[in-house]
Amino acid sequence: MSTKMRPFGETISLDEARAIITRSLRPIERIERVPLERAHGRVLAEEVVAPADVPPFSRAAMDGYAVRAADTTGATPRQPVVVTCIEKVFTGQMPSQAVGPGQCTEIATGAPMPQGADSVVMVEQTDAEGTAVRIFAAADTGQNIGRQGADIKRGQVVMRPGDVLSASRVGAIAALGRAHVDAYARPRVAILSTGNEIVEPGQPLQPGQIYDINRFTVAAIVAEHGGAPTSHRTAADTIPDLERALDDCLEDEVLVFSGGTSVGERDLILDALSNRGEVLFHGISVKPGKPTAFGLINGKPFFGMPGYPSSCLLNTHILLVPALRVIARLPAIERRTMTLPLARRVVSAKDRHQFYTVRVADGEAIPAYKASGDITSMSQADGYFEIAAETDVVEQGALVEVTLF
Amino acid sequence: MSTKMRPFGETISLDEARAIITRSLRPIERIERVPLERAHGRVLAEEVVAPADVPPFSRAAMDGYAVRAADTTGATPRQPVVVTCIEKVFTGQMPSQAVGPGQCTEIATGAPMPQGADSVVMVEQTDAEGTAVRIFAAADTGQNIGRQGADIKRGQVVMRPGDVLSASRVGAIAALGRAHVDAYARPRVAILSTGNEIVEPGQPLQPGQIYDINRFTVAAIVAEHGGAPTSHRTAADTIPDLERALDDCLEDEVLVFSGGTSVGERDLILDALSNRGEVLFHGISVKPGKPTAFGLINGKPFFGMPGYPSSCLLNTHILLVPALRVIARLPAIERRTMTLPLARRVVSAKDRHQFYTVRVADGEAIPAYKASGDITSMSQADGYFEIAAETDVVEQGALVEVTLF
Repeated sequence: MSTKMRPFGETISLDEARAIITRSLRPIERIERVPLERAHGRVLAEEVVAPADVPPFSRAAMDGYAVRAADTTGATPRQPVVVTCIEKVFTGQMPSQAVGPGQCTEIATGAPMPQGADSVVMVEQTDAEGTAVRIFAAADTGQNIGRQGADIKRGQVVMRPGDVLSASRVGAIAALGRAHVDAYARPRVAILSTGNEIVEPGQPLQPGQIYDINRFTVAAIVAEHGGAPTSHRTAADTIPDLERALDDCLEDEVLVFSGGTSVGERDLILDALSNRGEVLFHGISVKPGKPTAFGLINGKPFFGMPGYPSSCLLNTHILLVPALRVIARLPAIERRTMTLPLARRVVSAKDRHQFYTVRVADGEAIPAYKASGDITSMSQADGYFEIAAETDVVEQGALVEVTLF
Repeated sequence: MSTKMRPFGETISLDEARAIITRSLRPIERIERVPLERAHGRVLAEEVVAPADVPPFSRAAMDGYAVRAADTTGATPRQPVVVTCIEKVFTGQMPSQAVGPGQCTEIATGAPMPQGADSVVMVEQTDAEGTAVRIFAAADTGQNIGRQGADIKRGQVVMRPGDVLSASRVGAIAALGRAHVDAYARPRVAILSTGNEIVEPGQPLQPGQIYDINRFTVAAIVAEHGGAPTSHRTAADTIPDLERALDDCLEDEVLVFSGGTSVGERDLILDALSNRGEVLFHGISVKPGKPTAFGLINGKPFFGMPGYPSSCLLNTHILLVPALRVIARLPAIERRTMTLPLARRVVSAKDRHQFYTVRVADGEAIPAYKASGDITSMSQADGYFEIAAETDVVEQGALVEVTLF
């Protein structure tokens, strides 16, 4: 019986791994037309120029009376100025008459200003009896008017390619009358778990089998960070099966496989990757997540994640998310951090940078990490702190900086 | 000509408004079965109990050899112990033989442990020639084994109703073999802009008309905070039209109308609301957003937002989002804040609590607020700071706490 297990060669540092990944990424160029209803969170791929003024006409900013300011000079509650109301204008209507000296037009918030008037006196500063309107306060020219184009001017560049469409930016595009925008496509991310032992949830387990976890966790994270996850069927551990799986994923823009990157004889994904593309690294000196591979196939980034669910998911946060956001043209994520005392002593892996998951409760960071094979190392954690390669022990009570998921 | 404009009566404080809203909310009870692929971010409505151990069998945590630890006592690189390999087990397979004294089984990470063996020696600490395997390090009993049930024990309560399904929790449910979960439904939020002047983007504008903005901004925020926005056609400013619009929305669980809550004659939404349900307040002493109404129809919360896009959107952040998260059973949002010097002097509204939007750049909070009618007051802002009712002026250079959107 011969053994073909292949021990890791040199592992590289996390920083080196990040640098190699970063050099391999290209922001997506694919563009699609998106209805405004679905544009929130998308990345704009066009320059948005205002085709017209917003608002398209000068309008009242208050309910009240459109007047000529000069007519109201010296008006006070005791010595009101009396003007004659010639018309009433509601929103959605156009005034039919110009306001002359000694006249006013009753006007609703948002209704177009009549010619001749240069200010609006709010209803609270008036009193009306028939067409006679008493004005209790002098108006300043321009007061309570939203000027045509004050929000957005015709011809103005309102947004630029690369702008991320927040709710309010979607609103600004709606204000221009646009029902669609050109946005960068969300990178399609092929997600696939390899391994003969992996079974789809909902199916019965045979002896020696376990349920697929990584497809679900990775897809959730990918969708959260601008990617469009595409799920693929589990591939068996043979070179032809894996090569076929790789080929099937080349419609997509990023490939994330899990499993098959350790050193066992059946960890064939590296061979399949070499046959189809290029391995750029295999093995990072981190814990968990050491057996992580990265490469390129047809210029598309391939992430070979460890099969163990906590390793796979932590690596997804630490390596895939930053990469995906670059490809999706989203800004780097700023995760929230908290500095907390460690609830109990933690012993770390020697010579490997460790990500140690913790739960946050009672003002403490409570170790949650069990083993990299345990999904509960993650599902019962709120975040992680990092332990440098040189550090072997972090004592109870030591302050640690927790990065929240 | 008679005037029916109705000045605001008493406005209430923001805190009072919040208290009234909070008292009126009921967390959603509607439950739906959700495929695991779409469960991320949802709120669990069931107790999830493990139907079996995870992992379902004890398994190797490393590639290597399953041994009896006692056999390896004293093994060193210079004085290795030699054991005989009786079998090779890959993941997805079951061992066919028990490991006896002096024997071992070659085993891959994740493969089931054979009977008799109590530890795994990693491949890096071995050397094999045919069936003779030299072990270079003494094994501790249990080492490199993931025990059956170590991740999750059969019968264990893994998650509880109300737990929000993070990516890792979705993974933990997948680990149990579940393809679906019962989750609380996302509250359906009816969103509707009222006003004769409002036109759908994509259509031409007639004089006096403007494009609908609020439907898009509110829907984006609602979807981000656990709600399912349902869009409804703009309603005209007549009592029958508005009552019909209210009735049409009663399939939904929350109603958000914008426009028609100021004091003009055509601001009829309050009358329609009184006819169909109950007005709980109208008018908050905040800027922007003073003409905000709240009530109940058939026990469903009704938000009457100002028609002005910045007022409507700020109110959506400040009043609707916290309420919606309670209804959706999501935890209160913790927005990020930054303390920054104000780039220039700001004059605030007298006697009204003001939310002042700012852009964050060059380490400063740069005022972005123009007018409540201007969507660019929001779309060019990164967040806001608050100015208490008693404060009229905030000087340039004053430190303000900016809440980021």
